[in-house]
Amino acid sequence: MAMMTGEEYLASLDDGRRVVAEGEDVKDLASHPQFATALKLVGEGYDRHHRPGPDASGPYFKIPRSPAELKDILELLLGWDMVTVTTSQGLLALLTAAARIRPASAEYARRIEDYFAHCRDNDLRCVQAITDAKGDRRVPPSGQDDPDVYTRIVERRPDGIVVRGAKLHISSAAVSHELVVMPTKNMKPGEEDWAVACAIPVNAPGVTIVNTSYAPREREADFPVSSRHNMPEGFVILDDVFVPHERVFLAGEIEHSATFAHSLGLWERLGGTAHLAEYGDTLVGLAQLIAEANGTERVSHIREKIAEMVIYATLVRGALEAAIANAEASPEGWYFPSELYTNAAKHYGAAEFSTMVRHLHDIGGGAIVTAPSISDLEHAEVGPFIRKYMRTKDGVDGEYRTRLFHAIRDFTADAYGGWQLVTMLQSGGGLYAQRLVARKHYPMDDAKALARKLAGLAGD
Amino acid sequence: MAMMTGEEYLASLDDGRRVVAEGEDVKDLASHPQFATALKLVGEGYDRHHRPGPDASGPYFKIPRSPAELKDILELLLGWDMVTVTTSQGLLALLTAAARIRPASAEYARRIEDYFAHCRDNDLRCVQAITDAKGDRRVPPSGQDDPDVYTRIVERRPDGIVVRGAKLHISSAAVSHELVVMPTKNMKPGEEDWAVACAIPVNAPGVTIVNTSYAPREREADFPVSSRHNMPEGFVILDDVFVPHERVFLAGEIEHSATFAHSLGLWERLGGTAHLAEYGDTLVGLAQLIAEANGTERVSHIREKIAEMVIYATLVRGALEAAIANAEASPEGWYFPSELYTNAAKHYGAAEFSTMVRHLHDIGGGAIVTAPSISDLEHAEVGPFIRKYMRTKDGVDGEYRTRLFHAIRDFTADAYGGWQLVTMLQSGGGLYAQRLVARKHYPMDDAKALARKLAGLAGD
Amino acid sequence: MAMMTGEEYLASLDDGRRVVAEGEDVKDLASHPQFATALKLVGEGYDRHHRPGPDASGPYFKIPRSPAELKDILELLLGWDMVTVTTSQGLLALLTAAARIRPASAEYARRIEDYFAHCRDNDLRCVQAITDAKGDRRVPPSGQDDPDVYTRIVERRPDGIVVRGAKLHISSAAVSHELVVMPTKNMKPGEEDWAVACAIPVNAPGVTIVNTSYAPREREADFPVSSRHNMPEGFVILDDVFVPHERVFLAGEIEHSATFAHSLGLWERLGGTAHLAEYGDTLVGLAQLIAEANGTERVSHIREKIAEMVIYATLVRGALEAAIANAEASPEGWYFPSELYTNAAKHYGAAEFSTMVRHLHDIGGGAIVTAPSISDLEHAEVGPFIRKYMRTKDGVDGEYRTRLFHAIRDFTADAYGGWQLVTMLQSGGGLYAQRLVARKHYPMDDAKALARKLAGLAGD
Amino acid sequence: MAMMTGEEYLASLDDGRRVVAEGEDVKDLASHPQFATALKLVGEGYDRHHRPGPDASGPYFKIPRSPAELKDILELLLGWDMVTVTTSQGLLALLTAAARIRPASAEYARRIEDYFAHCRDNDLRCVQAITDAKGDRRVPPSGQDDPDVYTRIVERRPDGIVVRGAKLHISSAAVSHELVVMPTKNMKPGEEDWAVACAIPVNAPGVTIVNTSYAPREREADFPVSSRHNMPEGFVILDDVFVPHERVFLAGEIEHSATFAHSLGLWERLGGTAHLAEYGDTLVGLAQLIAEANGTERVSHIREKIAEMVIYATLVRGALEAAIANAEASPEGWYFPSELYTNAAKHYGAAEFSTMVRHLHDIGGGAIVTAPSISDLEHAEVGPFIRKYMRTKDGVDGEYRTRLFHAIRDFTADAYGGWQLVTMLQSGGGLYAQRLVARKHYPMDDAKALARKLAGLAGD
Repeated sequence: MAMMTGEEYLASLDDGRRVVAEGEDVKDLASHPQFATALKLVGEGYDRHHRPGPDASGPYFKIPRSPAELKDILELLLGWDMVTVTTSQGLLALLTAAARIRPASAEYARRIEDYFAHCRDNDLRCVQAITDAKGDRRVPPSGQDDPDVYTRIVERRPDGIVVRGAKLHISSAAVSHELVVMPTKNMKPGEEDWAVACAIPVNAPGVTIVNTSYAPREREADFPVSSRHNMPEGFVILDDVFVPHERVFLAGEIEHSATFAHSLGLWERLGGTAHLAEYGDTLVGLAQLIAEANGTERVSHIREKIAEMVIYATLVRGALEAAIANAEASPEGWYFPSELYTNAAKHYGAAEFSTMVRHLHDIGGGAIVTAPSISDLEHAEVGPFIRKYMRTKDGVDGEYRTRLFHAIRDFTADAYGGWQLVTMLQSGGGLYAQRLVARKHYPMDDAKALARKLAGLAGD
Repeated sequence: MAMMTGEEYLASLDDGRRVVAEGEDVKDLASHPQFATALKLVGEGYDRHHRPGPDASGPYFKIPRSPAELKDILELLLGWDMVTVTTSQGLLALLTAAARIRPASAEYARRIEDYFAHCRDNDLRCVQAITDAKGDRRVPPSGQDDPDVYTRIVERRPDGIVVRGAKLHISSAAVSHELVVMPTKNMKPGEEDWAVACAIPVNAPGVTIVNTSYAPREREADFPVSSRHNMPEGFVILDDVFVPHERVFLAGEIEHSATFAHSLGLWERLGGTAHLAEYGDTLVGLAQLIAEANGTERVSHIREKIAEMVIYATLVRGALEAAIANAEASPEGWYFPSELYTNAAKHYGAAEFSTMVRHLHDIGGGAIVTAPSISDLEHAEVGPFIRKYMRTKDGVDGEYRTRLFHAIRDFTADAYGGWQLVTMLQSGGGLYAQRLVARKHYPMDDAKALARKLAGLAGD
Repeated sequence: MAMMTGEEYLASLDDGRRVVAEGEDVKDLASHPQFATALKLVGEGYDRHHRPGPDASGPYFKIPRSPAELKDILELLLGWDMVTVTTSQGLLALLTAAARIRPASAEYARRIEDYFAHCRDNDLRCVQAITDAKGDRRVPPSGQDDPDVYTRIVERRPDGIVVRGAKLHISSAAVSHELVVMPTKNMKPGEEDWAVACAIPVNAPGVTIVNTSYAPREREADFPVSSRHNMPEGFVILDDVFVPHERVFLAGEIEHSATFAHSLGLWERLGGTAHLAEYGDTLVGLAQLIAEANGTERVSHIREKIAEMVIYATLVRGALEAAIANAEASPEGWYFPSELYTNAAKHYGAAEFSTMVRHLHDIGGGAIVTAPSISDLEHAEVGPFIRKYMRTKDGVDGEYRTRLFHAIRDFTADAYGGWQLVTMLQSGGGLYAQRLVARKHYPMDDAKALARKLAGLAGD
Repeated sequence: MAMMTGEEYLASLDDGRRVVAEGEDVKDLASHPQFATALKLVGEGYDRHHRPGPDASGPYFKIPRSPAELKDILELLLGWDMVTVTTSQGLLALLTAAARIRPASAEYARRIEDYFAHCRDNDLRCVQAITDAKGDRRVPPSGQDDPDVYTRIVERRPDGIVVRGAKLHISSAAVSHELVVMPTKNMKPGEEDWAVACAIPVNAPGVTIVNTSYAPREREADFPVSSRHNMPEGFVILDDVFVPHERVFLAGEIEHSATFAHSLGLWERLGGTAHLAEYGDTLVGLAQLIAEANGTERVSHIREKIAEMVIYATLVRGALEAAIANAEASPEGWYFPSELYTNAAKHYGAAEFSTMVRHLHDIGGGAIVTAPSISDLEHAEVGPFIRKYMRTKDGVDGEYRTRLFHAIRDFTADAYGGWQLVTMLQSGGGLYAQRLVARKHYPMDDAKALARKLAGLAGD
């Protein structure tokens, strides 16, 4: 019942969890190259937030009770490590679901609130585990030839349930404490066993995490971004995991099966959009820096491209502000962002992201992928030549410019950049999902009334 | 010193003004087809707002003193006729300029405030007159072979100045009371005579308005939009017009020459964006109505296109909300919208408008331009056939659907639609101007700092 | 059995046909404003091509027997009036269908060849009549509450069939001789009566054409494009029209029902793309002319926009060349353009057309819609002022520039421009249809093999 | 005077060349991980083409003498390794330049032809070395504070010249025999020393290649594309390299300085476009394969996206066909592709490439970046779970689908994919350069004539 330090966090992960990476069991997370950066970042986050005393709790456990508080959380979030971000998002999504399923399922809602308190009081880190393996996309869960491709209840016991399945794209799973499991989609009559939401500790028997990573293995100087920002990606296997009732939030009530995914989608898109806005500004900054380093910052077509990037970043941020300004209150007095603005922002930000990256590549030039390695700069004879030829003018020396190219490559045109291109697009669902949700929450009747009035058909 | 009724407004235009249309002098505005709709709309606006008493004044003369008041004005504005909109915008732009040139040019600022009071107290309608003829765009005002292609002071008298030139694209000039004249661009040393801002009554000697119009001439039933919303477009000739000092707001101070255009640009783009947001919703509504009338509203690619239109309208509105939420206060306590968000919204709204129109055309089908005339519906023998074949199902009769097609054509694919395509793009300057201004007001140093930090170059 | 002169053509239309326009029966086509231009254009086409003698026939009746001949036809086509274009396209589409339904339906194929000879020998003009009223788009022909919303056989007689229905978007119907009727879509078992293709003279009893038009009514000088290029648009009612067997090309064989539409689609898209290529070049030319007239032709962002228009026009033309170079031969030795390239070209050309128009509007400026009327130029006192202020420099006088603005408005931002925006998009089916057909004709197996090889999965 | 085998090629590289990689001198190319794949690919190319006898020569040394021969070369080129491609392109570019500078500089043209024969007869591989370091882009070569940032002649000797500078983005330099050096841009009077073109053996004294690479270092099974297709990227330093007259192709004649870059640009864009067309098809194939593997290939929005990719690939190929069909002959009877179509194709292909990649990522899903490693499949306990959950249906087992995801990631969302994103955009110059050249070669006068005719201004 207290906040943890970074050291306590590290110790807490030595809990018997099972992690596999590149074909081998990981015996010690702390010494494995796939996890070093993540552990450091999360640990630093614990240390930065740590306050002593049994009543202390992290700001990432705050429930917004006004649009202003919602805005505060979003601004804080940009400074948090990704595990802390997903903890906040995942738990707020759970609370959103609680508000939406109450009063019909008041008991589940109560358990969610208790679980929230449990995580807060023990300063745990949680990841949402939503995407199922899904099998053949044309076929519903109940029609798959392998019923486990959607996570399901395989046994109902007096004291709880047993679940089986796999959850994909679970960033940070291996370095978190809790998995918040939810149905990936709406379930229909006959699919009650697949309508399951619950919380599972990462070290529960039957849980295995197969980890992948875009962390660079070597030449860290050539990877200034990914060497400091990488997070592990987990493929989570649930091999008949027992969950006690107190941690079960849905177990067959198909009418609520989509509520969890919708609630999570909202918070994931909000967080994703907040990052898109920041990444938008970062892309602008990189474009301006490299243009200045190249001496092209006054060239007309370069200025136009940067202006388009400016407008992109501004529109994402504008819609984000509108999502908060138009936040809606639950009966509990909790504030959730506007679904309409959040989805519109996420769709636009994700859809145009690749074009903004293209602008940066067009502005920067081929040296983004062909600049010599930072280690070449230290070669006794060759290093000076690289400095000479990568330099452009007073104030822009060859090393600075070389480092800038590597940062652009690492951020947008290498493993981390590729991970980002895909993740930006897919987080909270692909473009189709965003379009769908935006349309669903749009006041279509008002738009039709406006159109009828214009057409002189309002009387009909 | 009182508000006018519609009737008083009409009478006030019989003031000796000179208007030419289609090669002929217009003797009587009220009976000329190019002005009938406009006079009716403006007159109705007067009647709707009219309150008796010497102290009454229209809400379009309100100066916003908080973001909330700014938002109120924007919402009201959507219900006003265009002349009232430009009156509000033009005068707020003048006040913005006043705030920006003070204290250096305090006397001009005082005159502007007096002029504002004059318009408010007499319930006048004003149009901004900014775009000059411009001659050869490569050449500055002082280098043109005809010096009059930029409006200029041709004589300075003890009691005022004499101006000569032409002002283009002056919507509603012929049905307004006042021309608010401003320099179209920044002037340089040696171009003092072209740095002129002033107010001129429409009936001042030397003023001629050559009017054009996209008002339909006949078959009004086939033009449900443009027959009710058209506004005259004026080409204003200033043939040595005398302006007394009290109405001169700039006369040679080149350092302020761009301030007026920038101030007007801000308000024009704000108003333009407010209309774009509404038009965005209207396009969505028309698309949904015609899809429902055709029976295609559940077809996947139709839904996707409508969803893209929804996102468009939402993003414009989101950035507009952000422009107001981030409004900036002048020393006078007047609130002006954020330049950055306003320009980003205007650019996006204008740049994507033609694609949204394309979506509507793609959804609606060829009958947008080939539907029979409403008058054909009344043909004794043929009318029933048209009703039969334009009908699609219960609830969608042939006349309703035919009228809907005409509204779409009139709004987006005929004279009014074409005027709108061009005007949306050009109001407040073309896309290049919006990009320029957005970039200028963007916090580039913050973006560069963000990028430097990401690149590990923050210490440099 | 001879070619007609323009005069003979005019006389041939006095054949008892029934045309309605704006609610009234048209007694005399030649004297009605909706038809004057069309009759003049078509008549001139007859005169230009006329050669004496019983064996003479127009080049628009040529069947291409090599890619080179196909290319020749496409180049000629750009110089023909629209009725002649649709005659050629419609008959080549019929022949394409003949080639595709043979040998199964050899009798129909023979009738088509005979009909082709009949049209050629009598120098007739034909329009394809394909789009049905369609009723509720969600419902097949057999399920509509009004069975007539898809054209159908209502009676089978010993000597022929009787058809009922309506055909929409039939450009030039009122000034042509023949309607080539085809099913609008694939028909399924039980829908045999809707699987009907045939040829019907425009003056056949039971045929009524309700005409619409975007021809300007006045101020022709302000409409330099549409006053010379307009074509009537017909809504064709078939009220129990008898068709003798010899002119019936399909009467219940549902397996061929889609063949006609597909064949027509191919030729319509080819012709549409040829026009798009020419219009692309025309848009470039207008953009360059107005930029030169404004003096902005060297401004960087203007040059970039014109370059994008150049690339647009070039890509459309390039794909058109590829469509011809990859033409396919029928067993008869007739050459048809490549479906894949034709559809790709049409899709791209149609999808990007509105953006190219936007570029032109962005380059030209607001005077596109606000330039004074040409008649104002002749006003004794005001005319000189307009000339003065619309002039920009030596070589660009005010009248020339004013006329250029009117041409741009008329071509892209008024009734004709709107008709074009919609027609470009919808001719040969909307964007969805083009995508569908392109995909269908794409060598997907080759692409998959390429991908498998790249992925190292070729052995699978 | 004979063709080499792969073994002879390998031996030929042991010629004293100086290569540096990751800060170290490379002693033995063959055993260094950055070069293994490239050497294998190039060696296989030698073996595949090898024919015995003194007169044998590779097909990559063929000069096209008709559009058909040009087309043949382009088709062959897709099967060649990249070094062979650049050899062909670079030498054809040199010959194009020879044709363009003749007769004024007939001696240089003769040397180029001799050099071509030398390369052909000895079966050498050449890379074009064009991009200079460039320093401050705002400043011409003669104004840079370091004159060496553009490669220049530092000494003129009786027997040749001495050059100094650096050449960037020289793919394959370390595994080739010859550097074909050209000026990167047009030089002006006073910049004669920078107007230098010549051929330099890679092992010439003073040449150093600093190499970078996107070759994967480990887990080759996770990198099925880049482990087989990677090519080294060289940063070439020319530290006072002597070039005998016979290998000097330009030495001060500034009027020809841009000719080489323009000629190379043409061939580089042609080759780039040929690859874009193939990559377009490959992206389509990957999208279709992953959609089929996921079971989404019939989902409407997936089909639409694949159709857009189909149209993309088809348009690139169509314009490429047109570039060949409209090839132009030099006085020597050599055929060069159309500049207009080549540039239009390259611009479109490069500009839309990132959107096509986005489509693939949108279709494939998050597993593109989160799929477990191939090595995890072999884990005794975990492997079966991955196979179980990555499987979707009969015919799509877990390993196949996992491998497909890795191929997509490797091709589009990892180091190779990022290299490709940048290279596609920058090869032959960025988008601005392509626009510029397309515009320059467009028949603008024809377009203006077309526009004037439409506007009724043809008589002016």
